[in-house]
Parts: sequence; C-alpha cells; structure tokens
Amino acid sequence: MISGCCTQFLPLLPPMHVAVRVDLSGPSDICPSVIAMTKEENKGAAEDPAQSKKALKKQQKEAEKAAKKAEKQAKLASEQQAEDEEDFAKDRYGVPAMIQSQEKSDRVLVRVKDLTVENADKTVWVRARVHTSRAKGKQCFLVLRQQQFNVQALVAVGDRASKQMVKFAANITKESIVDVEGIIRKVDQKIESCTQQDVELHVERIYVISAAEPRLPLQLEDAVRAETEGEEEGRATVNQDTRLDNRVIDLRTSTSQAVFGLQSGICQLFRETLTQKGFVEIQTPKIISAASEGGANVFTVSYFKTSAYLAQSPQLYKQMCICADFEKVFCIGPVFRAEDSNTHRHLTEFVGLDIEMVFNYHYHEVVDEIADTLVQIFKGLQKRFQTEIQTVCKQFPCEPFKFLEPTLRLEYKEGVAMLREAGVEMGDEEDLSTPNEKLLGRLVKEKYDTDFYILDKYPLAVRPFYTMPDPQDPKYSNSYDMFMRGEEILSGAQRVHDAQLLTDRAQHHGIDLEKIKSYIDSFRFGAPPHAGGGIGLERVTMLYLGLHNVRQTSMFPRDPKRLTP
Amino acid sequence: MISGCCTQFLPLLPPMHVAVRVDLSGPSDICPSVIAMTKEENKGAAEDPAQSKKALKKQQKEAEKAAKKAEKQAKLASEQQAEDEEDFAKDRYGVPAMIQSQEKSDRVLVRVKDLTVENADKTVWVRARVHTSRAKGKQCFLVLRQQQFNVQALVAVGDRASKQMVKFAANITKESIVDVEGIIRKVDQKIESCTQQDVELHVERIYVISAAEPRLPLQLEDAVRAETEGEEEGRATVNQDTRLDNRVIDLRTSTSQAVFGLQSGICQLFRETLTQKGFVEIQTPKIISAASEGGANVFTVSYFKTSAYLAQSPQLYKQMCICADFEKVFCIGPVFRAEDSNTHRHLTEFVGLDIEMVFNYHYHEVVDEIADTLVQIFKGLQKRFQTEIQTVCKQFPCEPFKFLEPTLRLEYKEGVAMLREAGVEMGDEEDLSTPNEKLLGRLVKEKYDTDFYILDKYPLAVRPFYTMPDPQDPKYSNSYDMFMRGEEILSGAQRVHDAQLLTDRAQHHGIDLEKIKSYIDSFRFGAPPHAGGGIGLERVTMLYLGLHNVRQTSMFPRDPKRLTP
Repeated sequence: MISGCCTQFLPLLPPMHVAVRVDLSGPSDICPSVIAMTKEENKGAAEDPAQSKKALKKQQKEAEKAAKKAEKQAKLASEQQAEDEEDFAKDRYGVPAMIQSQEKSDRVLVRVKDLTVENADKTVWVRARVHTSRAKGKQCFLVLRQQQFNVQALVAVGDRASKQMVKFAANITKESIVDVEGIIRKVDQKIESCTQQDVELHVERIYVISAAEPRLPLQLEDAVRAETEGEEEGRATVNQDTRLDNRVIDLRTSTSQAVFGLQSGICQLFRETLTQKGFVEIQTPKIISAASEGGANVFTVSYFKTSAYLAQSPQLYKQMCICADFEKVFCIGPVFRAEDSNTHRHLTEFVGLDIEMVFNYHYHEVVDEIADTLVQIFKGLQKRFQTEIQTVCKQFPCEPFKFLEPTLRLEYKEGVAMLREAGVEMGDEEDLSTPNEKLLGRLVKEKYDTDFYILDKYPLAVRPFYTMPDPQDPKYSNSYDMFMRGEEILSGAQRVHDAQLLTDRAQHHGIDLEKIKSYIDSFRFGAPPHAGGGIGLERVTMLYLGLHNVRQTSMFPRDPKRLTP
Repeated sequence: MISGCCTQFLPLLPPMHVAVRVDLSGPSDICPSVIAMTKEENKGAAEDPAQSKKALKKQQKEAEKAAKKAEKQAKLASEQQAEDEEDFAKDRYGVPAMIQSQEKSDRVLVRVKDLTVENADKTVWVRARVHTSRAKGKQCFLVLRQQQFNVQALVAVGDRASKQMVKFAANITKESIVDVEGIIRKVDQKIESCTQQDVELHVERIYVISAAEPRLPLQLEDAVRAETEGEEEGRATVNQDTRLDNRVIDLRTSTSQAVFGLQSGICQLFRETLTQKGFVEIQTPKIISAASEGGANVFTVSYFKTSAYLAQSPQLYKQMCICADFEKVFCIGPVFRAEDSNTHRHLTEFVGLDIEMVFNYHYHEVVDEIADTLVQIFKGLQKRFQTEIQTVCKQFPCEPFKFLEPTLRLEYKEGVAMLREAGVEMGDEEDLSTPNEKLLGRLVKEKYDTDFYILDKYPLAVRPFYTMPDPQDPKYSNSYDMFMRGEEILSGAQRVHDAQLLTDRAQHHGIDLEKIKSYIDSFRFGAPPHAGGGIGLERVTMLYLGLHNVRQTSMFPRDPKRLTP
C-alpha cells in the first residue's frame, strides 16, 4: 500500500519540492498513502494593474501553460500507473504509518558520525534528515544530516532500487526525517561538502518517518552563511527576526548547535568548579512579594487575590541562605527585568549564574574565587569545546578569547584615569556609560593584552542599597564588575551584613522598609560577612564566542517586542 | 576600648540573654562598646483582674524585688568599674568593628569538623556560632556550631582569661557569630552532645563578629526535636508556619542542612546521569505568550503594554528543542501553577526536572531511560548522602526507600484491577484520586516490595492534548506516571509529533489554535518521534526522605497563602 511519487524535474528550473503527507485517517491505518503534492511557486515581481494589455497576454500564456501542464500530468499519471504495476522495489521505499509505538524493534540505528571507512561494506540503518537532494539521470544524491554531521547517500537504479524508488527519493522534501538502509562504501575522491568525507551510503531502502512541508521559511545553507560571504558574493543570509520567528529551524544549523552545546558546557563547568570548591546548589523562588532591587523595572504577576513580582535576581534569597549557614551557594535560574531596552545586550528574561559566599576578613577572598571560576570555565571551553568554537568561528570570525592568570584587577579610579587620558570627560562618581565601558575594554586590551578583567571599588552612589561602603572612603564601595571583551558580564559586591546599616542604606535609597522586612530581619540573628555576584549566561556565551547580539545565545529570547515562539 | 558585660546570673532563673550590639556610629569606629542589655521575660499565666487582693500582694512583692534588683545592679556597676580597671585580659575579648574588609589577613580559620584528637594541643582560630552557653562558677561552657558540626569550648578564669572575660563570653547571645582562638584539648570523657566528642577548645581569645538579637523567634533545639519525643515528653516542637516565617533560622538546623544538601545532590545526580547518557542542558523561557497546558491555572504577568503568562512547564520548549535536533535534552527550572490547592504536596512554584528525548520505534525506550535516571539518583543518594539521610531520619523516622532493578512497570488497567480487588469502585477511564493513588502504592509495596514503580498506558481522556494515543486502543494513551511511596513524582508521555494530529487533539481539547501556532508549526518541518517527562524536585526529596509536607523540601515555599519570606 505504499505509492511512489509521480513528478519529474523540468530542466533549468529549480527542483520541485514535493510534500509527502501522511494520511491520518485512523491510528490503525498502517500504510497511508501519499496524498498531496504542492509545487513551490516562483516569486514574481508585483504586477502593475494599469498594464492591462501585458496582463492579458500573460493570462493567455498562463492558460496555455496550464493546459499543457494538465496534459502532461495526465500522461505522467498513466505512465505512473503502468510503472506502479511493474515496480519490483515497491516495498523498499514509501511512507509508513506515523510511529505511534506500534511495536518494539531491535533494529540498530547507526549514527552518521560513525559512518567511516572502518565500517566500509557494512549494511546499516540510519535515521537522519534530508539536508539536500539532487537527482541526476538514474541516480539521486542525498545529503543526510544528523546534528552537525552529514553524509552523502546514493539511490541508483539497479538491482535494489527501481526508477520509481529513485524518483521517490528525489521528491522527499528537505528537512524530512528518513530511515535509510544502505551499504557503507569507500569513495575514491573525498566528498568535501560532507563531514563524512571518505564514504557514501548506497541506499537499499528508504522510508519517510516525518515529512517536512515543502516551503521552508528559511534555508539552512543561508542561515549558516558567513556575513562577509553574503555581502561580498551577494548571496542570501537570514535576518535575525526571520531566524527567531522560525527558531526551530534556525537552531538546526551547525552554528546554533555549536552555540548551545557550548552554552550547556558553560553551565556544566560553572557547577563543576563550584561543587569542587565546596559550594551547594540552591533553588530560589521567582515569585516574590517585593521587588528585590527597588521598585523599578519589575514585572507584576497576578497572584490569586493579590499581586506579586518576578525576581530581578536571586540576590535576597542567596543572602538569606548565607544567613542560614549554607556558607557557599550558587544557583542557575531565570532572572526577569522589565526594562524597555532594545539593545544588543538586554533581554527581559535571561539566565543568571549566581554565587554568594562567606569570607573571613576581606571580600577579595570572594573576588578571587569568582574570577578563578570564570577562568576555569574559559579553560574548560578551550579544552572541551574546540570543535564548537571553530564551527561558530567559521560563520562569525573572531579572535580567540584571551585572559590572564591571575585575573587583572583594576580599581575604578584607575579605569576613570585611563579613560580621561584617552580624552573622555567624566566625574569621579559617575557610572560607566556603554561606550565608555567598551572603550575602556579596548584600552585594557592594548595595555594588558586580556579580554577579561575586574573593575573594583565602584562609587557607592551607583550601586544597590545592600552594597558595603568602602571602609576608608565613604564615596566608594566594596563592589566590582567583571568584563569580557569590554562588556559587563558580572556585577557583585560585599554585602551589608548588619541589619542596622542595611536599614540605613535602604532608607537612603528610598526603599519601603516594610516590603523588605523579612530580608532585613535575616541579619538580626548573626550574619557572617559575605560577598557574591551574578553572571549573565547569554552574555558570557556571546562574548566568549565574539558574537554581537545576545539573541544569538538565547534559545528563545524575550525582549520588549518579542514573546514568541 | 573594649568593654565586658556587667550582669550576673540569678540562681534558679533561666539564664539572661544579653544582647551584644555593635554601635554603628561610623565606619571608622573600630571598637564600639556594648550598649544594650535586655532580659527575656518569663511567661506568666494570664491574670484574672477580679483577684485584686492577690494582684496587690503581687505588686508589692514585685516592687520589693525591683528595689533589691536596683540595689544589686548599683553594687554590680561599681564592682564592674573596679574590675574594668584591673582587667588584665581586656584585649582578649570584645566586639570589634564590623568586618568591612578593612584589611587582609593571613589568619587561618580552622573548620569545627577538623577539631579532632589528631590536632590536640594545637592553637587554632575558629569562626562559629554560639549554639548554647552555660556559665558555672569561674567557667563558661559554650557549644560552638558550624553547619552540622559542633564542639564544646571552655572559657575559664586563669592565666589567659579574666573574670570579666568569662562573663563576657557567658553573655554572648545564642546564634551570634564569634571568632575564637583556643587550644584543642583531648577530653577524658566523651562529650555526647557534640559531634566533636573527643576534644574541647580551651578559649584564649573571643570576639563577637556578628551579634544575634537576644530573643530568637524559635529555638534550634526545639526545631530539631523529633515529633514523637515532643508528644511523649511534652517538650516544645516548632510548628510549620513559625518555621517558614523564620526560615533563615529554621534552615540552620542539622535536619534542614541535611534536607537541602541532599536536594542539591538530587540535581547533581540528575545532571551527571543525563550528561553521561548524552543529554544536553537547555534553558527555556518562563514568560510565555500562551498557556502551555491549556488556559487553566496559569499566572498572568503584565508585560509592557500587553500581558503574558508564566510557564506551567517547559513542555512546549523542550519539544521544540527536539524538533531543532537536540535529540536528548534536560532542564532544571521553576514551574508555575496558579492552582488554589492547599495540600501537603502542592506548591504554586516548584522546581521541575525535565527530560525530553527522541526514540527509534517505541516510547518505552524513553521510559527505561527515565526510570534508570531515577534509579541512579536513588543509588547515588544512598551512597553519597548517607549522613544526611540518617540526620533527617533522627527527627523524622522512616523506612529506607526501596526500589527494584529494572523498575516495576504496571499498566493502568492492572492498577485499576488491583484497586477494585481491594474494594475500590472506579471507571476504566477515570483518573486516580489521591487516596486511590496512595492505596495503590501500598498494594504495590505489599505485592512487589518496592517504593518506586511506573504506571503505564493512562486513559487518553485524563492526559494533556499533546499525548500520543495508544495505537491499538484509542481510549488509552502512550503515557505514564511514576510514583514514590505511593505519590506521583513524574508525569510523562510519548508526544504527538505530527502537526495535523496535534491540531486535531488541541481542537478536541478546546484549545485556541492561534495561541499555540508557533508550537504546532514546529512540527511541520520534520519532527522525530519523542517522549519525555517532568519530575517535581521537592516531591522527590520529600518522598525519598519519607517526609510529609513538600514545604519541608522547598527552601522558600510558595502556596496560595504564602509569598514570604
């Protein structure tokens, strides 16, 4: 009950995309047949309605075309019927019923990356996507893709495959998932376009497991094209909104797979390092009764008959864990900022990697631990994710990320002096603007040859209320930011651990004490000196890889204008 | 500039709690003095106003008492003054300035757990909390606590400590954090009440780093008392609301430290196991444009000029990652349910451990992987967290958690049959009620001797729209729950991976297709068969340890009535 497809390629036109759709008439329908074909339309220029003569002529031409097409299709259909009857390979291809766990199978599916010369001449089953297909006489070349690996597969008319089978294969839409049985054959000439360069798969059976619709919203090859190549050679690239609107397809590219593989690695290395250092992982609530960083930029949630807020950071809770004797804690979780900023580095929801720990006598004990954690992450990425780094670099070329050991630490005052020397006018207690931050990054890179450094001792006025003032100069504070390629990725400080001073500081910032009562009360029953910081995961990923937009490193980014997918 | 305290204990009355408060007149104030003392009042029975004679007598008595007290205090004050002048140890104790990172120090602070006979006769510095203190003539015994470890410390009048120093030590409030220098001394008789039973610390210097207020909202010894002991011996235990209102103190108990240490271990084992199995960690958005599980029980967020929802699960996103070729993914993150359920096992925000993976031909491939992941967690906890398990067991006695390998899998029909046999009346397609769920757990335990099992093939009607129907019987589905000690901890299924069937099922459930468009569209461009499940972290912790309320295993629980701390 499996039927092949009945179209032929018209020479010089782009190949037709044929939809192979499964008929879902019932769950017990084991072998539904192919029921629909659609042809991708060529995009024409918009027509001027005034040009009626031209339009008429065009209509006539189209009518003729349609008639010819109908005639041809009728002919093809009758040919097809004849072919169907005599198709000796008709059980070797088709569209089986949707996999609904009808039965268990001990069939082994081999990974594409394991299709190598060592396994030459073995017959194997592979499940993969049709990356591209190209029919050529009695042959059809497919590129089968599995994550970042791909292999060439050949369906050729012969003992095992019929003409109809080759046609069927040629008509499988790009991105469809197929099960293929084939023999691994060594090739004489390397296949440069595939990761498996030394072999190809000679297809014996091919079944469509899940058919893709013929019209893809974006082409994978466009989505991985280097921007420079696109510009220089006038080839298509995909703009960011199209990518994000069709994120499921965009995420299939080798670049995306590498970005998010590496991002998963950052989390893993962060946890590994901290667990080794004796930290405990905590889980903090995201629905909170009071805005943690003052009232601004906070999302409001309807909470039964009252309202609540989304946590702008786990700040208050990780500190409460410190007061509860957990000593060294970390957490990884979403952080919410209702900031109407539409920049390359702001998201309304991002992933925070948070650290908080007690120290003995000086908050630099904590700064050193955090900096070392980041250095361990950088090193781990270099070591374990070299393939991913290279893959991303192909599309988005950039210099390797440089860092020093121990990490460079400058005082805010020194940073301001460097900026002033470079012609910037700014006050002592003024915060760094984004351009100044970047400029300082360049100056530091020139002088110290590092993409990672710490800026210590910020002016007290530009930091949150819970920041410990500097003991020598009340204008400054025991707080710090860390930067990668000139952009802030971490903000941290020694925290005030005394309830009275905390109350004074909150009042100074105009914060409603009633709302943070349970937080302040946490410090009334013995609180150790402590410090910490929060890291933005998407920023670290972006800046490590030298990318230019944080939306590239958030799987499903949220900004003031984007809530889907 | 350090002054001792000037109170004495009145015999037969409970010891006074003396507040050691730091004067915060300025950051450069190195040696603030003790400025306040408060006495904990004895709780008397409520007085009947009619008993005026009695009351009068009492008043007289109290006046006499007060007069005596004043006299005594005056005497003490003059004695104190004399003593202050001649205190040879006055630099060996006190309240130094708040640690504001004034200077770096290479002083090594030794961990309480390292105070052992092997280190006898060494002089060490320790930072710890004052767990209890007891003055006795010229001596003061302190128990110093550091997380779950504690040690006895002795301040005794002699060469190194003066009378005033002993008094100072005796008056340090419970839960204050102190820096102590002392000599580790072997003791002849084991100190049963401490974890460090073979040594005590002979104090040479003692400084208050952070003073606790004298009136603790709950006593740690009450908070760790076994319920049975409380009931039988009429001793105080702490009720749940008091614990949660003062969570920072409640979390300091050895039981809480063990519970959350073990919970951190569950996350670690979950990730370790899955990473080893080739899974990738993903981060999914929590602010979403459409309710993922239909419209009910969802929190609404104000999102700039529009509104959004809080994700009830990462369901749609982890499936989209499957469609994006990540193949095997997991995530750990908050999950939000606006359910007005005030039960022992419902929270409005909890931590979901989510898994999603492709399979080849049958969803049991996934079920086996998930069950094995849980088994690896159970084994890992047994192996690495035995101390924590024992600690919790002391306060909340329970049978060790039992499981089989491979995990027991029953069909829903079998479960219903067992319940019917036990006298329960229920329909074939009816969902399990909580009492029936628990009863079935007991029946399974009796018959198979396991606390962990899988119930497979639920009726389709009681599962979400994206659940794959059973291929043989459309009344059932390829879905499953997993249970620990008779309570559900995981819900999962094979998902519909065909856009058309998914559309039909969503319509059948009355879901607005427009709202889940980007989700359904994800399946239009080739989607592999896949299955997964979501685990509730707090429930796993609770049931593994045999606790009875999920609020015990959530650091800062959220329910319809609780938003703080």
